[in-house]
Amino acid sequence: MKKCFQFLLLLISTSLFAVEQPNPVKLKSPDGNLEVSFYLKNGIPYYSLNRKNAVVIKESRLGLILTENQSLDKDFKVADIQESAFNETWKPVLGEVSTIQNHYKSVKISLEETSKLKRRLDVVFKVYNDGLGFRYEFPKQANLQFFVISRELTAFNLTGDHKAFWIPGDYDSNEYHYATSKISEVDAWKQPLISKGKLNKNIPDQYAVQTPLMLKTADGLYINIHEAALVNYPAMQLHVDRSNYSLSANLVPDALGNSAYLRAPGNTPWRTIIVSDKATDILASKMILNLNEPSKLANTSWIKPLKYMGVWWEMQIGKSNWNYTFDVDSLSSTGTLIPQGNHGANTANVKRYIDFASKNGIKGLLVEGWNTGWEEWTGNWKENNFDYVTPYPDFNVEEITEYAKQKGVEMIMHNETGGSATNYDRHLDTAFRFMNKYSYKSVKTGYVGQITPRGEHHDGQWMIEHFVRVAEKAAQYQVMVNMHESVRPTGLNRTYPNWIANEAGRGNEWNAFSDGNTPEHETILPFTRLMGGPMDYTPGIFKLRNYASNAPDRQMHTTLAKQLALYVTMYSPLQMAADLPENYEAHQDAFQFIKDVGVDWDDTKILEAEPGDYITIARKEKGKANWFVGAITDENSRQSVIPLNFLDKGRKYTAIVYKDGKDADWKTNPEAYTIEKRIVTSSTKLKLNLAKGGGAAISLIPVQ
Amino acid sequence: MKKCFQFLLLLISTSLFAVEQPNPVKLKSPDGNLEVSFYLKNGIPYYSLNRKNAVVIKESRLGLILTENQSLDKDFKVADIQESAFNETWKPVLGEVSTIQNHYKSVKISLEETSKLKRRLDVVFKVYNDGLGFRYEFPKQANLQFFVISRELTAFNLTGDHKAFWIPGDYDSNEYHYATSKISEVDAWKQPLISKGKLNKNIPDQYAVQTPLMLKTADGLYINIHEAALVNYPAMQLHVDRSNYSLSANLVPDALGNSAYLRAPGNTPWRTIIVSDKATDILASKMILNLNEPSKLANTSWIKPLKYMGVWWEMQIGKSNWNYTFDVDSLSSTGTLIPQGNHGANTANVKRYIDFASKNGIKGLLVEGWNTGWEEWTGNWKENNFDYVTPYPDFNVEEITEYAKQKGVEMIMHNETGGSATNYDRHLDTAFRFMNKYSYKSVKTGYVGQITPRGEHHDGQWMIEHFVRVAEKAAQYQVMVNMHESVRPTGLNRTYPNWIANEAGRGNEWNAFSDGNTPEHETILPFTRLMGGPMDYTPGIFKLRNYASNAPDRQMHTTLAKQLALYVTMYSPLQMAADLPENYEAHQDAFQFIKDVGVDWDDTKILEAEPGDYITIARKEKGKANWFVGAITDENSRQSVIPLNFLDKGRKYTAIVYKDGKDADWKTNPEAYTIEKRIVTSSTKLKLNLAKGGGAAISLIPVQ
Repeated sequence: MKKCFQFLLLLISTSLFAVEQPNPVKLKSPDGNLEVSFYLKNGIPYYSLNRKNAVVIKESRLGLILTENQSLDKDFKVADIQESAFNETWKPVLGEVSTIQNHYKSVKISLEETSKLKRRLDVVFKVYNDGLGFRYEFPKQANLQFFVISRELTAFNLTGDHKAFWIPGDYDSNEYHYATSKISEVDAWKQPLISKGKLNKNIPDQYAVQTPLMLKTADGLYINIHEAALVNYPAMQLHVDRSNYSLSANLVPDALGNSAYLRAPGNTPWRTIIVSDKATDILASKMILNLNEPSKLANTSWIKPLKYMGVWWEMQIGKSNWNYTFDVDSLSSTGTLIPQGNHGANTANVKRYIDFASKNGIKGLLVEGWNTGWEEWTGNWKENNFDYVTPYPDFNVEEITEYAKQKGVEMIMHNETGGSATNYDRHLDTAFRFMNKYSYKSVKTGYVGQITPRGEHHDGQWMIEHFVRVAEKAAQYQVMVNMHESVRPTGLNRTYPNWIANEAGRGNEWNAFSDGNTPEHETILPFTRLMGGPMDYTPGIFKLRNYASNAPDRQMHTTLAKQLALYVTMYSPLQMAADLPENYEAHQDAFQFIKDVGVDWDDTKILEAEPGDYITIARKEKGKANWFVGAITDENSRQSVIPLNFLDKGRKYTAIVYKDGKDADWKTNPEAYTIEKRIVTSSTKLKLNLAKGGGAAISLIPVQ
Repeated sequence: MKKCFQFLLLLISTSLFAVEQPNPVKLKSPDGNLEVSFYLKNGIPYYSLNRKNAVVIKESRLGLILTENQSLDKDFKVADIQESAFNETWKPVLGEVSTIQNHYKSVKISLEETSKLKRRLDVVFKVYNDGLGFRYEFPKQANLQFFVISRELTAFNLTGDHKAFWIPGDYDSNEYHYATSKISEVDAWKQPLISKGKLNKNIPDQYAVQTPLMLKTADGLYINIHEAALVNYPAMQLHVDRSNYSLSANLVPDALGNSAYLRAPGNTPWRTIIVSDKATDILASKMILNLNEPSKLANTSWIKPLKYMGVWWEMQIGKSNWNYTFDVDSLSSTGTLIPQGNHGANTANVKRYIDFASKNGIKGLLVEGWNTGWEEWTGNWKENNFDYVTPYPDFNVEEITEYAKQKGVEMIMHNETGGSATNYDRHLDTAFRFMNKYSYKSVKTGYVGQITPRGEHHDGQWMIEHFVRVAEKAAQYQVMVNMHESVRPTGLNRTYPNWIANEAGRGNEWNAFSDGNTPEHETILPFTRLMGGPMDYTPGIFKLRNYASNAPDRQMHTTLAKQLALYVTMYSPLQMAADLPENYEAHQDAFQFIKDVGVDWDDTKILEAEPGDYITIARKEKGKANWFVGAITDENSRQSVIPLNFLDKGRKYTAIVYKDGKDADWKTNPEAYTIEKRIVTSSTKLKLNLAKGGGAAISLIPVQ
């Protein structure tokens, strides 16, 4: 009761005895290196960000435009300012490290309109040592309850023509090649980013880019702009003013052209700026996770990391098909579907994968194309395309469930929606009940194609709500989720730890059916797509040439050793061994690394990194003393010297080094690798020669 | 096997030995009175309709425009013509008569494009004695599988400036006053049709009207235009060319501006033209039901007609509220909602209604406002407004279920969606499971407000599919459905007999909260809204003045006797006794009619009818010898002489006549009525004096 009274007193004091508020409001990070400034100029709110007295973000607008041209961006006065500090550590359920420090200083600036509506808008800044997060909050008030946001004015005015690593602002996809260009050169139509193939392009603004946007200044400062905790709001893209080096928020609209339907009290997601003079700091930052809410799940004991295989790559490369028949109207004289003869998800084939996974200790098995509907699954606005519970006639779900159980393999459910989110929503309970009945503990979802509700986009508010709904519903049924073609993540795996991975970027699969991914692709992804959360990139392809049945010249743009290294450099608690069993059988020695490598970690060291060039990371397996190292390079060969000083002092480790063969080259000789075994300690320095498009993977197991 | 072979031979013969096809194709009704003509002119399809050699519909276009300006309306040749005849009788589960004859002649004209795509379009005509039905069919073919309809060109070119009974072409509502005007005077903005009050107006074309459209020619011919079996297609409105007296199809568009997403093989709904020189024939027509598919439900034994009361009118008139609290954010110090103090759906009040219903043999009780969400239920685009299973704290569902069971009353579920169909879709299974658990056998659904998915309309294809989905899902759970604010019906109660009623028109409730309904309103509805199916009009208001708490001058526009007559003139197997228990207690003698009157019928005689003026109908109760008669008039008083020749010859009946009192008048003396009891036979002629806005109701019970 007493506490309550003091709180009231505090509130009264700030409103009764309002004095002239400081302008600008300034706030420094705990270490003093970063400083955000907020101020009103003629009633219009602005902010800027400095690091060690150098400008990172120049004076930039804040504010929102509501529908019917109502503004929430001017005529403001500062009504109140509340500062606070926060420091705690927390433990992610699955993660790169066992413990995360959440340490920041915060200021809430309460704005009030000077005009007659006197609406209130709060701007909240959280300044971390590694970056700035800020968002808009809408307090409960008489003149603003339900409202619709038309535009967000938030800007990020840069100090120069920085180098940018970017993909175009598609409302429905992140599956592009990354461009590396100056800010002044951003133009979706002038860069070779768009593959022929499966993509429905939807890029209304050729000068807009997706976040996370990775920037590097001429002075060597690394800046990463994204958002955190994207719920109940559309994804933010950035429109690039190429003359002024200014970025401004571009919200993905809905079917009516509006951006967000909100209600006060409420808030936007956090806008994030991570900044450092070391590229490795960007990859090590946990600010986006910290800006998300703690886990909403009371019991998380059922959430486990997972390595898995899939009846999947064989469809990607055209060896078999998802669909059972050619045409849903093709019925035999007895009224049954006529099989097209090349259906991958048949019981015998699935058992073959189960046998292989079981023998090699790969815990999970995904099967795509198991359920009816694949003949007309996407592309025609067909809304009722799947029912999520009816297997094709040659997929015996009872038999497979029983067989997998005997063999100690966990079956992974696949729920492709073809973009028909309304239809999936309607079947969610039924689909999850089916998973519970047949012991599926995780599901891969997919959203290939145009979204239904028609007119909505993958990255609009409606779908953002849908993705969260699926994650929440899955949690009710204790099912882990891996979403493909979803919005790029924003750290929500903290809040929903069962939402263990997303694709939401250009995965390894593009090598199967298109011009593939560039050798530098995987050196950019951790600085962009993965800043928001784990990616189900599906590495581990061993047959690097002659795999695509209809394109004999097609090849991967990595060496085999680099495919191994990706298990460490591309963080995910869900990792696929993506290739066919027969291709692993042909390289059992190299496959040993995939069998050994951890998927959940107590510690992570970003040893070296430069976006677009190289990344080397070491990780310590959760609950064990084992370390694993992955090193990758781009199209250039590279020598990497790795001091193993992260190892326990005085302890001996058996290092198995999987590295590019002497003449390895992603283009001419991708499958050349060597495996070395030696004893190392924390004082060892390992020299690694990475081939063009190459990499190295190392397991470090304490000598017993 | 032999049959199969003959069928093949027939197909071969028509295609191999194609001769010049007749042009026009003509087809007569079984009785020879109606004749449809179909012909191509320069490859463009047309039809016309004659009755006894007089033109009903002049030469009128047929055809469709697909998206991307692909036409399916020209460059046709006739590839095949197949005639057939059909005659059967069938028994509706619930209905106005026990047996319906489905007797027609049919012709299918297969059109094929002469251009290189050679796409095929079939036009099918069914000619009944009482009207014409026709539709487009899309056979399976190589060059037309998935397609999107942009416009339908179907026209109905009238022979003159007919009198029309119409409401405006709102995409989202049928709840308007009816206008009576010449075709040349149709204009939504020039007629006093639109009440202030609850309506979201959405009338993009002021010259468009809803169907069923009732027309009367200068020669006294009655023409009714509507559609049958509206599934997987948007509702058809009619654009009026006021100069040429031409009507053309106006399909309600979706969020993207498209009309219909179809797949071949497939078809459109039937376009219907019912025609007679007797207005009574229009009301007696069963053509729309006949054009619908037979019941899809194997077991219909659980589908029962129902009279019911409701904790409902008291909210409509402002005596109590749906919402429990004022504001969902208003919480007490212990975190519970603060009640606003006037919540209708509280356990004690519900028990009071149960007591009254039980005592008076009213089988059902609807309770609105029982579940959380009513504080923010519609109007703000709030999608997740209801969960359909959480009662307000003062509504004890277990206690009420048990009490109702003891008292022999069936509780009726209420699922208001506030227009958020996506949210309802997601909760359907859960909602129906809840109904099964608590023995709710029927549900009233509601769709007040703008539709989510945003950009969709109540009458667009997406919602049409939604309504059917709800009916199908309800059938799975053996629940009967009564939809409010749904699309106007098209005879689907034949196919889904559990879809027992709809509102989908301007119901009695408008008298509670607006300028009310005109005295002629109920003489038009059977010729318009009810042509498609039963209406939950909610008659039986006894307190005709001084009922609206915030509008003391408000009154009903009928007499009390007319309220009784509506139970017979407005067909529905679900009929509400809409007024408060205390108002029935004040008129126990008149209430006897509501207690007695049937709701399901073996036979129906439309004794006299003129749209806008009067209707008198006699109905024989299902499985009993009792007859009930309802007679209503408009704003004019009227004497009606009713020969009782429909009664069994030589049998004596006790007639109880509930009629307007001598000085009754809807405006000055609405509650004046007298009740007469006498013995009658089939040779009796009853003379009834109907007051202005008055009516009469008669029960005819055989003397034992």
